[in-house]
Amino acid sequence: MKQALPDTLRQALAERFGNRFSQGESTCLQHGRDESVHQPQPPQAVVHAENLEEIVLTVKLCAEHGVPIIPYGVGSSVEGHVLAPQGGISLDLSGMNQVLAIHAEDGDATVQAGVTRMQLNNALKGTGLFFPIDPGADATIGGMAATRASGTNAVRYGTMKDNVLATTTVLADGRVMQTGGRARKSSAGYDLTRLLVGSEGTLGIMAELTVKLYPIPEAISAAVCTFPDIESAVQTVIQTIQLGVPVARIELLDTLSLQAINKFSKTTLAEAPTLFFEFHGSPAGVEEQAETVQAIAGELGGANFEWATRPEDRSRLWQARHDAYFACLQLKPGCRCFPTDVCVPISRLAECIAATNEDIARVSIPIALFGHVGDGNFHLVVLVDPDNPKEMDEAAWISSRVVDRAIAMEGTCTGEHGIGLGKRKYLAKEHGDVAVDVMRALKQALDPQQLLNPGKILP
Amino acid sequence: MKQALPDTLRQALAERFGNRFSQGESTCLQHGRDESVHQPQPPQAVVHAENLEEIVLTVKLCAEHGVPIIPYGVGSSVEGHVLAPQGGISLDLSGMNQVLAIHAEDGDATVQAGVTRMQLNNALKGTGLFFPIDPGADATIGGMAATRASGTNAVRYGTMKDNVLATTTVLADGRVMQTGGRARKSSAGYDLTRLLVGSEGTLGIMAELTVKLYPIPEAISAAVCTFPDIESAVQTVIQTIQLGVPVARIELLDTLSLQAINKFSKTTLAEAPTLFFEFHGSPAGVEEQAETVQAIAGELGGANFEWATRPEDRSRLWQARHDAYFACLQLKPGCRCFPTDVCVPISRLAECIAATNEDIARVSIPIALFGHVGDGNFHLVVLVDPDNPKEMDEAAWISSRVVDRAIAMEGTCTGEHGIGLGKRKYLAKEHGDVAVDVMRALKQALDPQQLLNPGKILP
Repeated sequence: MKQALPDTLRQALAERFGNRFSQGESTCLQHGRDESVHQPQPPQAVVHAENLEEIVLTVKLCAEHGVPIIPYGVGSSVEGHVLAPQGGISLDLSGMNQVLAIHAEDGDATVQAGVTRMQLNNALKGTGLFFPIDPGADATIGGMAATRASGTNAVRYGTMKDNVLATTTVLADGRVMQTGGRARKSSAGYDLTRLLVGSEGTLGIMAELTVKLYPIPEAISAAVCTFPDIESAVQTVIQTIQLGVPVARIELLDTLSLQAINKFSKTTLAEAPTLFFEFHGSPAGVEEQAETVQAIAGELGGANFEWATRPEDRSRLWQARHDAYFACLQLKPGCRCFPTDVCVPISRLAECIAATNEDIARVSIPIALFGHVGDGNFHLVVLVDPDNPKEMDEAAWISSRVVDRAIAMEGTCTGEHGIGLGKRKYLAKEHGDVAVDVMRALKQALDPQQLLNPGKILP
Repeated sequence: MKQALPDTLRQALAERFGNRFSQGESTCLQHGRDESVHQPQPPQAVVHAENLEEIVLTVKLCAEHGVPIIPYGVGSSVEGHVLAPQGGISLDLSGMNQVLAIHAEDGDATVQAGVTRMQLNNALKGTGLFFPIDPGADATIGGMAATRASGTNAVRYGTMKDNVLATTTVLADGRVMQTGGRARKSSAGYDLTRLLVGSEGTLGIMAELTVKLYPIPEAISAAVCTFPDIESAVQTVIQTIQLGVPVARIELLDTLSLQAINKFSKTTLAEAPTLFFEFHGSPAGVEEQAETVQAIAGELGGANFEWATRPEDRSRLWQARHDAYFACLQLKPGCRCFPTDVCVPISRLAECIAATNEDIARVSIPIALFGHVGDGNFHLVVLVDPDNPKEMDEAAWISSRVVDRAIAMEGTCTGEHGIGLGKRKYLAKEHGDVAVDVMRALKQALDPQQLLNPGKILP
């Protein structure tokens, strides 16, 4: 139940934050919805924090008044992470957008949580370095850490779990905690950084983060290749990974995704199961990787290898890939997306996708399938009219089928979207009751009042 | 204070484990000491568990009786991790030595905690895969996970934090928890696996672990190169890393280490500051990496590049490197080692080592310096007579100096050895009081009776 915000809290926040404190309906609504099909659940107020001290102040005030607090970046998450089912304050960190330090010689940077990945990469221009994690949306680094995001480059550069070195985190009682450090490795005590990464704002609010950077590869080459069927595309991925080719990106898109992309992005890509590749390395290394992959693809019926080595051609290609989500939304005007993502051991990927496609053939709603298949991770973009119960039922059925299948194949109910509200029911199915009990005990230890993003992750 | 083991516990264990339960003085002493200078603190009994159920049984019995339990692998840790300052049961897991599954197609294997890294690599013969983490000693996978071990290959393949995918863990009350899974990535809930990795047996006992495997590189090449001074060797490392050369190993040894190795291993390596390299990749890729590094080293005065491409030559080379620790011990007959390891951002590595060498010049005891410098990690092997207070004082001084320096340089008090008993006093200095309070809260949440390896990590 949402109770009205206590007057003393409202007054204190209004006084401290002026017009960066808002109870306006549209502001609250905007902060209480995400990119997915979840029904909006607006907070009672929004606070725009611009520095660590303002987070501390807000958290302390909320703790005193027993009011929930929900960290907010740009709202690009898709499992209901930013919704406010119990009301409370949405703490908007998008104004915390300072790049605090770039240590080019060590390959790391420290940023405020509201810095987006593109902003960071812009700030890195001229250093010869880049931040590789790329979930598609121009998400904030804080939000990406909170959901343990990954995306197209993860097959080569890992996920946020591998790329956050340190955090400055505000605890539920307002204390400020340092975790990790700038050393590349450490055995000094419990790994609090990795406990926070993926905790979706439920254990603490990451205010500042130090992330790893990588040298921009000397050579980059991208390619598109079409296949007679999904199976042969997936087999190409599996063989590439099993051979240990250090491919930087290897993305699968199904025919429907390509149709959507062509329509949305005015491209003329072949409308067939397609792999997008990117290779990073020395010029010779990139050529070697490309030859190996081309040979594998060729044996499996891959055709029309189209190469993009010029930066503008590569950008166009990857823009098309990144637009896939929004392109699919246009397939069905007025629809919302019921997204789901799963990840399985790569030996099960072909089987998992094939069985999922059989399910897709059994429903009436359009469903596109694409994903970061080098990691065994793929997405369904399920297009629904939220007011049509039959469509919502079909979407729920498809989602539960693919998740159950992934878990049965020793995979996970979410490769990169997180649990949020949407996947809480699968947590125990995947990890078992004991692990969920332990997660609950950790939550209780760090947030005994249950005020940090309540209702998320834990069923 | 150590209290006598309760009779009922002793009887229950003796009955259940027969001669795999021992209170013999020599067995207890062997399990109450490690490779370092810590005074032995034997447990009151040793239980040799051979499967998950036996761990559960022992933990439940200890919990009922309020008796500490200390997991034990092969005793190769060096910060007092296996000592029993409060007495209790040492739970020897070396009999849990079954490789449970090898999933070659997915690049992972599931092992019991007592499997050693060499045993795993032997089991992988014929699969084309290997397990890269190599801390020198033939440690158990469970022990390596518990101390977040790394070693020579970590610059390329990461540490145990990056390579444990899943665990089956026995909690303090005997419940069995599954963490992680075989998918290459997941955003499903708190990262319990990484909370356990590095927790030194204080939060749970990892009984089974799933680890990542890697394709054996098509080409491997190793080299040794000597330098006029430490500074130029370290600069070679820094430039190599900053250029992003994907070197698999890059190890520094100082003159004293080389003298010790030559004497111990009957080698004829030049007795000067030396880098050991290893390159992994395709034949062309390895050649390219080697050329790049040779050019950097050449500009900095590196000479006598000696190459080892045949497996037996490479083995001889790395055996010499691995023997460094034991070779150093022979420099001073009857001595013990007071080991320390720190890790700093690579831009500070040269300065950190130079200042440390100034300290070394000020003491009377022999101190060898070597390490995994590609990560900014180095070790001091401080040779002392434990009965000589002056030497022990010098060792303590050197150790605190290098740790304080590393922390001041935004590094860590331990890159790979762990906190154990030896480095508890540095934990708050490195992470701050709030982080240590949070670690304590996590310990309290998971082990309220404080029975799992008590006295370790937390000051």
